[in-house]
Formats: sequence, C-alpha cells, structure tokens
Amino acid sequence: MNPHQPDAPTQLAEDTDWAGDELREECGVFGIFGHEDATTLVALGLQALQHRGQEAAGIVSSDGKQFYAERRMGLVSDSFTKPSVMKRLAGNSAIGHVRYSTTGETVLRNVQPLFADLAGGGFALAHNGNLTNALTRRKQLEKSGAIFQSTSDTETILHLIARSPKSCTVNRVIDALYEINGAYALVGIANDKLIGVRDPLGIRPLVLGKMNESYIFASETCALDIIGAKFVREVENGEVVVISAEGIKSYKPFPKKPERPCIFEYIYFARPDSIVGGKSIYECRKGFGRELANESNVEADMVIPIPDSGVPSAIGYAEQAGIPFELGITRNHYVGRTFIQPKQSIRSFGVRLKHNANRTLVAGKRIVLIDDSIVRGTTSVKIVQMMREAGAKEIHFRVSSPPITHSDFYGIDTPSKDQLLASTKSVAEMCEYLGADSLAFLSIEGIYQALGHKDGRNADCPQYTDHCFTGDYPTLLEDESGGELNSQLSFLSMAEPHEH
Amino acid sequence: MNPHQPDAPTQLAEDTDWAGDELREECGVFGIFGHEDATTLVALGLQALQHRGQEAAGIVSSDGKQFYAERRMGLVSDSFTKPSVMKRLAGNSAIGHVRYSTTGETVLRNVQPLFADLAGGGFALAHNGNLTNALTRRKQLEKSGAIFQSTSDTETILHLIARSPKSCTVNRVIDALYEINGAYALVGIANDKLIGVRDPLGIRPLVLGKMNESYIFASETCALDIIGAKFVREVENGEVVVISAEGIKSYKPFPKKPERPCIFEYIYFARPDSIVGGKSIYECRKGFGRELANESNVEADMVIPIPDSGVPSAIGYAEQAGIPFELGITRNHYVGRTFIQPKQSIRSFGVRLKHNANRTLVAGKRIVLIDDSIVRGTTSVKIVQMMREAGAKEIHFRVSSPPITHSDFYGIDTPSKDQLLASTKSVAEMCEYLGADSLAFLSIEGIYQALGHKDGRNADCPQYTDHCFTGDYPTLLEDESGGELNSQLSFLSMAEPHEH
Amino acid sequence: MNPHQPDAPTQLAEDTDWAGDELREECGVFGIFGHEDATTLVALGLQALQHRGQEAAGIVSSDGKQFYAERRMGLVSDSFTKPSVMKRLAGNSAIGHVRYSTTGETVLRNVQPLFADLAGGGFALAHNGNLTNALTRRKQLEKSGAIFQSTSDTETILHLIARSPKSCTVNRVIDALYEINGAYALVGIANDKLIGVRDPLGIRPLVLGKMNESYIFASETCALDIIGAKFVREVENGEVVVISAEGIKSYKPFPKKPERPCIFEYIYFARPDSIVGGKSIYECRKGFGRELANESNVEADMVIPIPDSGVPSAIGYAEQAGIPFELGITRNHYVGRTFIQPKQSIRSFGVRLKHNANRTLVAGKRIVLIDDSIVRGTTSVKIVQMMREAGAKEIHFRVSSPPITHSDFYGIDTPSKDQLLASTKSVAEMCEYLGADSLAFLSIEGIYQALGHKDGRNADCPQYTDHCFTGDYPTLLEDESGGELNSQLSFLSMAEPHEH
Amino acid sequence: MNPHQPDAPTQLAEDTDWAGDELREECGVFGIFGHEDATTLVALGLQALQHRGQEAAGIVSSDGKQFYAERRMGLVSDSFTKPSVMKRLAGNSAIGHVRYSTTGETVLRNVQPLFADLAGGGFALAHNGNLTNALTRRKQLEKSGAIFQSTSDTETILHLIARSPKSCTVNRVIDALYEINGAYALVGIANDKLIGVRDPLGIRPLVLGKMNESYIFASETCALDIIGAKFVREVENGEVVVISAEGIKSYKPFPKKPERPCIFEYIYFARPDSIVGGKSIYECRKGFGRELANESNVEADMVIPIPDSGVPSAIGYAEQAGIPFELGITRNHYVGRTFIQPKQSIRSFGVRLKHNANRTLVAGKRIVLIDDSIVRGTTSVKIVQMMREAGAKEIHFRVSSPPITHSDFYGIDTPSKDQLLASTKSVAEMCEYLGADSLAFLSIEGIYQALGHKDGRNADCPQYTDHCFTGDYPTLLEDESGGELNSQLSFLSMAEPHEH
Repeated sequence: MNPHQPDAPTQLAEDTDWAGDELREECGVFGIFGHEDATTLVALGLQALQHRGQEAAGIVSSDGKQFYAERRMGLVSDSFTKPSVMKRLAGNSAIGHVRYSTTGETVLRNVQPLFADLAGGGFALAHNGNLTNALTRRKQLEKSGAIFQSTSDTETILHLIARSPKSCTVNRVIDALYEINGAYALVGIANDKLIGVRDPLGIRPLVLGKMNESYIFASETCALDIIGAKFVREVENGEVVVISAEGIKSYKPFPKKPERPCIFEYIYFARPDSIVGGKSIYECRKGFGRELANESNVEADMVIPIPDSGVPSAIGYAEQAGIPFELGITRNHYVGRTFIQPKQSIRSFGVRLKHNANRTLVAGKRIVLIDDSIVRGTTSVKIVQMMREAGAKEIHFRVSSPPITHSDFYGIDTPSKDQLLASTKSVAEMCEYLGADSLAFLSIEGIYQALGHKDGRNADCPQYTDHCFTGDYPTLLEDESGGELNSQLSFLSMAEPHEH
Repeated sequence: MNPHQPDAPTQLAEDTDWAGDELREECGVFGIFGHEDATTLVALGLQALQHRGQEAAGIVSSDGKQFYAERRMGLVSDSFTKPSVMKRLAGNSAIGHVRYSTTGETVLRNVQPLFADLAGGGFALAHNGNLTNALTRRKQLEKSGAIFQSTSDTETILHLIARSPKSCTVNRVIDALYEINGAYALVGIANDKLIGVRDPLGIRPLVLGKMNESYIFASETCALDIIGAKFVREVENGEVVVISAEGIKSYKPFPKKPERPCIFEYIYFARPDSIVGGKSIYECRKGFGRELANESNVEADMVIPIPDSGVPSAIGYAEQAGIPFELGITRNHYVGRTFIQPKQSIRSFGVRLKHNANRTLVAGKRIVLIDDSIVRGTTSVKIVQMMREAGAKEIHFRVSSPPITHSDFYGIDTPSKDQLLASTKSVAEMCEYLGADSLAFLSIEGIYQALGHKDGRNADCPQYTDHCFTGDYPTLLEDESGGELNSQLSFLSMAEPHEH
Repeated sequence: MNPHQPDAPTQLAEDTDWAGDELREECGVFGIFGHEDATTLVALGLQALQHRGQEAAGIVSSDGKQFYAERRMGLVSDSFTKPSVMKRLAGNSAIGHVRYSTTGETVLRNVQPLFADLAGGGFALAHNGNLTNALTRRKQLEKSGAIFQSTSDTETILHLIARSPKSCTVNRVIDALYEINGAYALVGIANDKLIGVRDPLGIRPLVLGKMNESYIFASETCALDIIGAKFVREVENGEVVVISAEGIKSYKPFPKKPERPCIFEYIYFARPDSIVGGKSIYECRKGFGRELANESNVEADMVIPIPDSGVPSAIGYAEQAGIPFELGITRNHYVGRTFIQPKQSIRSFGVRLKHNANRTLVAGKRIVLIDDSIVRGTTSVKIVQMMREAGAKEIHFRVSSPPITHSDFYGIDTPSKDQLLASTKSVAEMCEYLGADSLAFLSIEGIYQALGHKDGRNADCPQYTDHCFTGDYPTLLEDESGGELNSQLSFLSMAEPHEH
Repeated sequence: MNPHQPDAPTQLAEDTDWAGDELREECGVFGIFGHEDATTLVALGLQALQHRGQEAAGIVSSDGKQFYAERRMGLVSDSFTKPSVMKRLAGNSAIGHVRYSTTGETVLRNVQPLFADLAGGGFALAHNGNLTNALTRRKQLEKSGAIFQSTSDTETILHLIARSPKSCTVNRVIDALYEINGAYALVGIANDKLIGVRDPLGIRPLVLGKMNESYIFASETCALDIIGAKFVREVENGEVVVISAEGIKSYKPFPKKPERPCIFEYIYFARPDSIVGGKSIYECRKGFGRELANESNVEADMVIPIPDSGVPSAIGYAEQAGIPFELGITRNHYVGRTFIQPKQSIRSFGVRLKHNANRTLVAGKRIVLIDDSIVRGTTSVKIVQMMREAGAKEIHFRVSSPPITHSDFYGIDTPSKDQLLASTKSVAEMCEYLGADSLAFLSIEGIYQALGHKDGRNADCPQYTDHCFTGDYPTLLEDESGGELNSQLSFLSMAEPHEH
C-alpha cells in the first residue's frame, strides 16, 4: 500500500515540467553577536535573503545561558513578524537560516538551524552549501552509534563537532571541518561566541558586517543593507572567524589556496543589489548581456527579458545592441507552485500562471528573448510558444550564461545530468526543440571576461567554481551523488510531531 | 531576560507612514457559465487578478440546483489550489472575487461573493467598486427591517435585489440598479444564468470573453489570457449582460451616456499586459513616461524606476530623454506588511524591507527617479533619503501622473484629503518635503494626450473619471463619505464563527 | 458531480447505527447584565451547560455602545479560556450559547448568538428550542425580501424582531413572539438591557439567578452553581423578563396557561445536580428507577447502569429491588465520534470505543441493565451482545422511561418516526431484537407518579410535554416537519469564510 | 473600555492548587505485528489507553522496508481518526504511545515513539515508565558525542541501543537494558520484528494479546478488549518478548526476581475493566472500599464518591457499611484545565468547574466522602468546603489508600515530598486542614489484604512497589531526582519546527 496517493478525483498538478525548471540555492544564513535587537535584526536580515530559500526559516538565539529556537515552514514574514514568536527568542546573539523550497513532501526535521547539547554546552549551526562526503561520514557515524534525526548534512557536521575530543568549541568545529568536503558557509552560535566559516575554496558566499559594535555574518551584502549595517569584508575561503566578547579572531586551519567561488552567484543567485567578491551583481549581469550582444547579436525590434532574473542582462544587451528594451512578458508574483489542472487541456497553460505575453507589444515584431540560463528547457519551450501565439514574427533566444551540461553537488538543486537540456543536445538541436528562430549562449570565455578577467578562464586554476558548464568539479565527489542520500536511508517518511 | 513576558516590550510596527502610502483597488471579479472546469478556471482567473486584491478570495459555484461557496483569507493560491477545497465547489458555472488588503482587523464577513436565498431561488453576487449612496440606502433598508451581516455595500445591493417585487432575476437586478449610485462592476450567478453589469459611467472595468462555447466575465483581459480564452468585447457602461443556456442577451436599463472609465486603471491598477478600453496598459504607461520627459526633462546620468509600478513609465521616459534606464532600486517581493521594529532606530528602515538602493550604480550619479503617483509621500521621502545615502549626487523626482488632490469614493482606497501630500502643498513645497533636487508631475493635459486625446481633456464631458486630480466627481456623493459607513454602524467588532 | 465524496481508499466510519442512537438537545443559553466579569461568567456558565451542546459555542457582549462577538466550533473550554479570545469580549453584559453536535457537515453560520443591527440599535439573540412554524414564516419573509444567512430558526425570530414597527426593543420582541409557535427559551441583549423569554407552555427551561446585584438567565441551575450565583426563580411560561439599569420587569404578553415543560429534561437532558420545576433531577431519576423496580422487577445478581446517563435510575432500581448496584460497563470519556473502520470486521466494535464490559464481574451472572431510554435501539442491541459475549447468563433490559413512539419537533434531535424502535415493534419484538432475556419500560403513569403526580397523567391537561411517548403534541405543527427546512432551501452547502 | 488592549488585565488561571492535585501516569503503549489493519488497531488500542495520557499521541508503522510516523498533540481521536493521517501510516506492523498532560509548555520533541536509523536498520521505541539513572547515562553519552533532541529518557535508551556493538537488534536492546535502572515497559519495532520489554521488577504493566495470528503488546487488557483481541498473558518482569515472522520468542537477560508491580495501577491508574496481575481492577477497588469500611466506619446517611475515580471504592464501602451509595457530586467531563479567573473572587470556584455538589441530596445529611487518594489535598479541601456550603451536616472523609508520604520516580508525576499533604501532617492535622469531621485512610496492611495477601505486606520482599506510602524504593535512585533532568540541561526552550 502506498500511503502517498493523491486525492483521487481532483487532479492536482505541479506541472513538473515547468516547476522544476529552475536552479535553486539551498539556503541563506545570518548571525549577529551582542546586540539588544539581535533576533529582530536576524529576522530582517533573513527577509533580505529570502530569495535564497522560501520553504522554511529558523532562528536560534542565546542569552548567554540558554538557547531559544523557532523553526517554521513558509516565508520569514509569515512567522518572524509575530510578537508571540519573537518574544520567545530571548538574548543578544542569534543566528538564522532560510531554506529553499523543495518539491514534494515537506520535511520539517530538516529546517535549520540545528542544535546540539554538547558536553561543553549548547551549540546551534546553520549551513548553506552541500558536502560531497556527507553520506560516507553519516554511515560511519551511524556505525558507531550516532542517531540522526534529519536527512540534512548539517546534522553530519554537528555530530562531528559533538564527537571531537577537544574541549574548546572552536577546536571542535575545526576538527569537524577536517572531516568534511564540499561547499559550506557555516554560522554557528555557542553561549559565548558566534562562529562563521567558509569552505577551503570559498564556494558558498559569506560576508562580515558590523552594526555599531556588533559583528554580523550574512550570505550577502543586501542583508547588511536592510538593517543599515556596514560591510567589513568577505570571510575568506577556508577561514574560521570567531566573534566573542573579546572581539574578533580569525583561524585558518587549511593550507592557503586561491578562492574559487561559485559562478552561479553572479549569474543567478545573489540579489542584483548585492556585492560579491567586490563586484556589483547588477553590473556583472549587465556585463553578461553586453558580452552576449557582442558575441551573438541579431537584427530585431526589441529586447525582452524573461522576468525577473533576465532583466539586468537584457538591459545590458539592449544598450550594447542599440535595440529598445521592452517588458514584453508580465510576471505574476502572486502565484503558488501548485494548481488544479483543468480537464480540458490548455496549451502552455502552466507557464501563463507566472508569465504572460504582452501581445499588443510583440505582435508582428522580431524579438530577442533574454534569459539567464536554460536548465531543462521545459519553461523556455513554453515561453517561446507563448510569444509565438502572441504574434511575435521572429524569436531570437539569448542566454546570458553558457550551456549547463553538468549537475551541481555543492548546494544548487540541479536535475540529474540527463535531464539538462544542454547535456544531450547541441545548440542547433536546442534551438529546434525550443522552436526559436535562433539560439545563442554566452561563451565560457565571454562570461569570465565580463567578470573582469581579460585573459578569460585560467584552465589550470579556474577563478570560479564552474563545473556546471565545464565538468571541472573543484573537489572529490566522495558520495558520488548527494541525491542518493535520501534513497539510501531507511528513514521515516514523516516524523514530525505537530499540533493537531 | 525572561523570554515569556507578555507582549509589551516587543514593538510591532506596521510603519503606518509607509504601509498606507499607496493606492489600493477594492477588488477583481471573474465569472464563467457552462464549462466543466468552471471553478478551476475561476481560480486561475482570480490568480491573474490577484494584483487587484490580496486580502481574501472567494468562489461560489452552481450545479444548476445547489450553490457551493468557499471564501478564504489570503491569496487565491493559498486555498484555491487545494483539492479538498476545489472538490467542494461543484457545478459548471461559477463566480469569484479577490479583495484588497486592508490595514487593521480582518473582517471575514465582508469576503465576497455574497449569497442570498431569494424567493425565486439562490443568487450570489461579486462586486468591484463602491456605491456613493450605500449608507443612505442601508439606513432605509434597516428601518424597514432588513438585517445586515457585513459592512460591505455589496450586501446593500443584494438586499435591494431581494426586495424587488419582480419575479425574474434580471428584472430584480435592474430594479436594484435604479436605487444605487456610484461605481460598480458586478458579476452575479443564479442557478440558470450568469449576469455581468457595469455602472452607467463604466467607472470600474469589466470585459466579456469566451472559451469554446462558454462566456466569461473578468475585470481585466489578463484573466482571459491565463486560461487561453478569447476577448470578445468590454461590457458597456450601463449594460447588463445575461448569459444563460439560451445564449447571451444585453439589457440597457439606463439612458445612453458617454463612458467615463477610471483613469487610475491606466496609471496604476490594471496589469501592464491587460488591454483596457482598447489600449495596451503597458503602452499607455510608456506614453506617460515619454510625455513626462517632454514636459519636464532634466540632465541626468540615468533613469531609475521605483519598482514595480514605475517601470513602464521609466522605460518611456528613458527612451524619450535618451538617458540610460537602470534598475537602481531592487524590490524584495517576499516581505509582509508588518515587522518588529528594532529598538535602536534605523533611518529609512521600513522602506528598505521592500526597496534597496543599488549603491554601486548610483554613487556619485545624477538620477531621475520615476514613480507612478504620490499619495501621502511618506514612502517617497524615504526613498529619496535612501538614494541620497547610497551616494546619488542629484535626485530628480518625476511622477507619471498629475498631483492627487482629492479622495476617491468609487472603490479606490485613498487617504482623506488632508493626508494627500498634493492637497496641502505646492510642487515646490513637496519637492522640499521629499528632499529631492527637483520634482515634476505629468500634467492633466499631458496624461489625456498620452492616452490619445489630442485635444486633451474635454472639460464639458471628460473622457475619464479623474476627480482625484481635478475634483470633478462624476456622480453625486450622497453618503458624502463612504468612510463614515463603518463609524455609523453599531456593528460587532468581531462576529465570525471559526474553527477554534 | 458530488463534491462531498469521501477520501477514497481509507474507510471512515461514523457507525451511524450507533452514533445517532441518542437524543440530543439543541442548546443551552446563559446571560448576565451589569457585572464587571460578565463574559468570564458567561464562559463559566456555558461550561456548566456544555452537556446541552458540544458542537459550538458563542458569546456576544456589549459595553453599552458596541457589541463584541466570538463564535467558535468545539467546546467552550477550547476557545473561551484563551485571553486572546476573552479580551475581545468587552463590556459588562453578555449572552452565550452552546449548540449540540450534529452529524454531518458543520455549519458555522448557524452558531449562535446571532446579531442584527436593528434600526433602534444592535441586538443579539440566543435560542434554545425549535419553532414549529419557522419554515412557513421564513418563506413569507423571503417573499418580502428578507435575506437569510443561516438555516437556524433563530434567524427567523431575529427577522421578525427587525421588521416590527415598534420602536422599543421589548415591544419588537413581543411582536415577534406573536408570530412564532413552538418551543423557545430566548436570551437577548441590547445595549441597555437583557431579555429572557420562555414559550407559552414553558417547554424549554430557563431560570433566573442573581449574583451580587447582577441578574442572570440560564438554562439550568447548575450554571448558577458554577459561579456561586443564587437561584431566584424560574422564568414562567409565556413570560418576558427584562433586566436593565432600572432593575427587573416582567411582561406577560400571552393569556395565562398552565406550564407544560418537556419531560425529557427530567429523563435525560438536565444535569443530575440541577433543579428543574422545583425538583432535583437526581431524585427524579432515582424515583424512575424505583418505580421501574416496582413495575417490573426480576430476580438477578446485580443491577448495571449503561453509563453515564443510566446511573441514577440504576441506583434507585437497585435500592428498591434490593439487588447490588455494580459498574459492569466502563465508559471511555475520551473517544470522538468518528473512527477508521478496520477492514476485518469486529463484532460490536463501534460500541466498545465508548463502553466496555467488565467481564470478570458479569461472567455467569444474571444482570439487570438500566438505560434511560431506547431511541433506535442500535446501541442497545450491541450492548446486550457485548454483555452476552462477556459471559452474562441472563440479561434483563430495563428502561427508566416509556417507549418513544413519536418524533420531537421542539428542539430535541430525534430520528424520524419510522426509525424509532418502539414505533414499529411491540415490547416482545423489541426484546427479541435486542437479544435480551426480558425487556420492560417504565409506564407513562409510572413516570408521572415518580414525578410526584399521585393521580398520574392528567389527560385533559397533561402536566408535561410528552408527545414522544403519547403523540400528544402541545402545539400545532405548522411546518409539519422542521426536518424539511433544510431540504427545502436552495442554500449553500458551505458558505463560511475562514482563515486558510 | 477598549477591547483590544494587551493581555495584561485578563487573568488566566490554572489554579495550580487545584489542577496539580492528582497523580498522573506517564504513558500507555501498544504494538501489533503482522496485521493488515495494524495502524487502525493501534489507534483504537490507544483510545482505550487514553486515560494513561492525554497530552499527545504517536504511531510509527513499518511496511517491512520503510517506517512511517505521525506524532500529534492532543487526544488520539483528534488526529488518528483522520483518513489523511492514517493513510500515511502504511504497513502491517505498528507501535503507538499516549503521553500524559503536563502543565506548562508543550514539548513536541518529547512525543513518542522515538525513531533512530541504526546501523542495522531503523528502530522505533515507545516507553512507559521512568529511569532512575537516565540523567547520569545521558551525561556520559553526551561526553562521548551523542546528540540529544529531546529531554525524554526514552532517547537515552535509544542512544544506548544505537551504541551497542552487537549486530542483532534484540542483543542491542538487551545491551541497553543492562545500562538502565528504573521502571520501563517498552515496545519497539524494527522492520522485521516487534519487541516488548518489562523492567526487572515489572513495575510498569505490559500484557501480551493475540488477534487471529497477530501478537499484540498493550499496557492494559482494556486495549485488547476494544479490538476484540484475546489476552494471552502478562509480559513477565525482566522479560524481553520478540515477535517476528518466525513467531514468538522470550528472552530473560536478568536473574530471576519476584515481580513487584506498582500498587498505584490498582489504586488509580488502570481502568476498572482491566485485569492486572490476574486481578480485576474494579474488584480490587471495591475491596479497598470494603476494607476501609471495616477499618474506619462511621455512622452516616450516605456514602458519596468523589467522581470518577472514587466510585468503585465507594460502592464497596457502602455495601460493607450498609449505608446508601449516592451520587452527591456531579462531575463535568467537558472542562479544560485552564480558565479565566473572575476578578471578583468566588470561594471554591475552580473545583466547581469539574465537580458540583448535589445540594438537594446532601442538605442536612451526614455524608461519607470517598476518594482514592490525597496528594496535595488542595482539591480535597475545596470539595469539603463545597459540600459544607451545600448543607452537609457531617463530612467524614475516607481515603481508599494509605497516606502518600514519598514522591515517585518511576513514571508517576508526583509533587515533591514537601508538597505531599501526608508527609508533613498527621491524620488529625490533615483532618483539620480539610475541614472534615473525621478523616481516615486505608492502612498499608489493609490494602495488601484487600489485594488478597492474607498475611499482609511482606516487609522483606514486598509484593508491590509501594514507596509512595512506605519510602521503600525498589531500586537505587541514581539521578537522585528525575525532576532535575530538565534544569540541568542547557537545552532549547522551544525547538520545534512547525507549520506557521
């Protein structure tokens, strides 16, 4: 008997073709030490990081003696704006986490930050990223009697910290870091300190800010802006930064390596008003559009972004190509991810929930459509179809990043390789599949140049983590596939106690 | 610190300065007759009309014998995507309604559609607009023993329909129309017919569409697009359109008058991809921007829209002025309307939840800020301040509509006259208040010309309902102020039964 | 399409045989005027009246200017113990209502008290009873344009009050009383007065109490006890009692008739610790048991009540017959009304959720089972079976009231006549159906004698409303059947707005 | 008065004097192996065990490969009657748990069964009882890196099982048993077996039943009755019973000792229709009453139980003493545990929510009040007061168990020693405190004799765990006080993720 059958008569569609056709980041993190408004500021910071994850959010605070936690499904503003919730989060230090929206069943146990009562005192941890040896480590830990409550690799890190023989929390954390591989931006809180960590390659982002005398960690600078905090610097790759009453200390437990941040922060994840690696995200994306116009311009009447993510590149493209920029597609921000499928099928129905063609504008026109990336292509094909139905005479599809040919294992939710459109089709085949009149991607050299690297990609020591385009994974993939983690667990399908 | 203290210390702010500084439409309506997917299509149509109201939504369906209703707080996608909800809404005909988001206490009783068991059979009604004599009529009805359950003027219409001595539902509706004044787009459903009505001046919009053999009413054409329905025509001002198994019939119970639709549909309410009165909303708004550039251009480095509503006008302005269009402000779509105010005050804090300056872009630049309107000015002043703090050298504020000097009584939620910035200050005074380097509004003649009226506004018989700019109210304001309705009722503060 | 299909695979049983086999009272009412703790006292009083209705509860309070209402599904203690609910109920006067638990769909609109904004000010009304001409009056009202929001006949009374041409609220109420027939105990509240009314025959109970200087109305004296109030007197049949700042006034708008209260209050509804018509309910029920022993004793080893309602009669029977009283059936107070039916059928399963035989006690014994009444007999047959399976050697079923042969139309939820066991079967046939060794009911004369009427029932002018046993309905049944009310309405199946 | 003021003025009372004045059992457990209706039967069994815990309930099922869990606050019937919940619980084997109702904050993490993904496969565990060295073991486990998610000592057992080096689940469980002391009735489930365990002294109860071919574990026989299962035998003290596809196996890892079950199961916890240790609970309680009458009878007019728990003893007392048994106190089963305290204080108010004197009956009478035990005496004093106010002439308080002078540490929620009335006062002082005319307790020898031990208590080797009366704790109290467990943890105040 399958306990998860749908409600029989009504057909609930998630239009998986369409809904899964985007990249998703695992999370955003935020932490602050020693501020009377600590939990309020975390709640605000998390709202500025909400684009990094909308499924769930959590805050753990400490008053120096006790920890207080609230973890909730939904948006930050659904829960962390309520006095009844916020007043339970006592204390002057706090960390928070937002988590992305998975398809399928909601797993409350995985909501972060996670907490453990270590021998040396309590410790809570929030993690953005993905380990490439979490499953291997987990199996080892289980063999020696560790009990896991979630499927999150954050819990693996927490167990490693708990099992360190060191007495000092910072040394325990460093012990655990030696055991793990992959991408991680960690923010941890003990009763007397706040710890920020970035993986040895700095794949996932983490910045250090300051507000009056209080230090802050955040995934992006836009989370500093919202509370009026100052940007201090980025946490370096492989650095452990510890904030306590004594001030700030830096530990570098790993041999020095060049940084290699994830290129998708520039292309897709970071908010346009954030500054990552010293570069304005908005300017980078405009640069991708300009470079794309240089590489593959075409004669057309207007440049139309696929909103919202394609907008900055389209502005750059339009400027460079001298073609008018127009909002030829309207985005509806109020739609959810599921809907009831009408029995009478409607062509390109699902996509129109979120996007609608501005038909008066495009009828009879030659248009350049700009998107930031193509993942499975299922949305793109429907958008091309929708624009065609709206009367566009020519549709030239332009993508402001290279073809995605490989899956990610560092915290981006990508489909398996065989489902990536570019991994199985040439550009010409993709163009035919999309039904576009032409299709072009920004080249890998072009994207490096647009990011300011005049000599392009350094193949020996690439400046970015870019395996999705190149297959050049920056670390060993010990678990082979993080996606197997779930299937190899005999774990409970549902284990959440909740209010009836 | 004890985390379980009563509410007192935590300060919940709605930052009323900021939150109330926008125009809000009362509602959107949708109806369909004789389609097997009727309620699913209503749910989709309402999602496309969600920008017209986010507080609550409702659907009433009929299977020809019985009526079924679901009315819920929150977004359409929160409730009307659930099989458990949708399967209760049986039948081939249905109407739906979305309602705007009020500040203050939620009043569930007012969620539409409303229903009455008339002597001739059941009838449900959804209404977009506002009557100018609802209170007067209500007091008369109460005197003769009518019992009201809501504070909505829709219920007044329903009582008038119920009291008509006519036996035919259409005639009952027409009897009621003779008793009411103001703005209304109505969609009503009886077991055997669907009725769409627009007020004698056509102040509120209503269009007729068709999908296969089924007729549809919707507030905007974008709701037809989402389900792939065809636009047939607008319901005319003063027209009663009746759909039944016999087909479509039109009644015109009022003497013919020229149409006078609300000009704010063009400026603010309608979605850019909708077509209203034969005009593309997106093109109209670009036209306002172009006209604004003609009227009051200034030398600058970039044109920046206040997102999202200012974008089309900014594109038009930028094109006409030959100044680059840039996204200098990032909008966060994930924020709610309330937040916990930090104890340490942060300048221009509230506004940054929703808008953040792209500081790398604007630092040291002369910028033109484009907004669609200024209501109370409380947001505008904070945005100017935020841009100034981000380093903008010059800030030229341009508004793509005339100064709002008068309140609305036709379904737009405007503050009282004395709270409208333009009603008490000259343009120079407003500029000083905002802290901008210059300020200009589109002229009333300019907006008419941009809408295609070469000779501008016809003062004898204005082409639009434009009293917010001119004070020229199109109907008698019998209640004087719709706002008094509530205060004159001894009504219950909370009368909702709900699940505990 | 039927929108109310069950969830397909799992079989949810309400074991309708079993669940509907009891009498249910429509409601309990409570009101207090001029006490600073008014709403708290109403909440407590309603808890003492909870046995009269468990589906829903509501309170409406007045501060002399405004009304405040909370109406909730579930027990009084689920909602009216929460500060967040109670603090919204401002004011020094309040009325409350508990409602019985219907099978089938919960209809929130029917939860009382109901409220209307009358021409002369607000008015809220709570009603225990049932009108015998509610449908007739409702159809008349609808014809003249009244809009009904519920299926409750309380709303019919409210419309009649609203339509009275009188200006004084008391006169309006009296006007309405002239229009209605049937059973009613009403408690109404205006901003300056509290009104208690009992129908001309006094079918439903209502008592007057006093606490310090504040007068109270309540369905039973146990609701006075809980708050430490004093019993003053019963509201008389046909009396309108008005409490205001000027004190207490009594109106008697009807010609004087002898009282004829519902005999089921003595048999089943009232709590054993209440005093009704000057008689202790507990003593009356013990008297029924004693009389039953006189009429139809049998040799046996023990007397076993079917708990909880059979206990007092069983004590009386055991005393009179000189047979030991034993708890041979254990009642589980924690069960709900629905359960998942196991696929493998289990004999007498449903009944064991609530009742379990004490098998060690009864094995090999001759037992007298005492119940207060037999309605459909479906529970009784399962209890006999269960006792038999537990090893009882002889089972003598004794019922402490006469056979129920007629339906009620005055506020008791009885099945239709053809479903009443005693209406279609002789005592011998019933005995065979139940599988008992013998069966006897208390005679109609016996019950009157046990109630202190030495000459038994006065056939010309019966002392009680006893049509369920005699078919002697005390008023004209104008609607013929109150049960048709729902089926004749084209009303909405679900019309409740609620939080998503 | 403004109804929307903050919480302050309304006083929420739990009347701690009154509410905490009863004994509470920690839990009830149930498990079944290899039945197609497994989870339905667990849900029913838990409803029969609901008197053992009303705070929360949980079920974990296994289909032989995967585990499924649902854990909910509230009664079993609140959640485990819903098809949406039940259909998620797939599989033919399942265990369940009900948990008692704590005062104060609800801790969802502690709801059982708990689950762990052991190296050898998943394992879920439900526990009734309390360990006397849980804290000691927990601290040791934390030192070696174990991470705890709850404050439950069940989790300690689970960690010990997880850390056993044995490969076979049964051996792992036995390893863990060697590490723990105290009282436990455990039911555990692996994918291929069901395990039932009772502590070496058999302090907490556990019985083995059978339904068709499926074995069942349950805390009491009444849970077998509800599903029509047969009682097989009790699980012996110190026995590990394993059910699998191969049938039933018994392990006895401890040296044989005489059983010493908790005497409070007989006095208070078990349901009257259960059979414990071969004895009918109902008969035992009647026996206590009879013995009490022998020991300390008094001349009186009636014997009145304090319902519901005092009823069987009162029946026994009345029979033995030849005094009529009467229901002089009515119990209200619908009340919750909290209420709003009226501002004007009412004497003996709180107690009347649950109990009300039948004043007609008792006025002027000499009464014997029977209760099963006195804990803190705060309820008893109010009941005496209430009976006095109702007019009782003499009140003789009789308790059907000895004075409670010591706290429990084996799963019964008792106040600390200094709060136990009998630990600080003589019987005469207690009588004065209660305001009774006389007071007597059943003697310790009397209770043993009533339980069938003619020679009374065997002081060298007592037949029951009876330290609450004697101070003779059956095991070492290693943690000294289980109550300190919480206070010694730096654990989170609230760590539950939940739906917003």
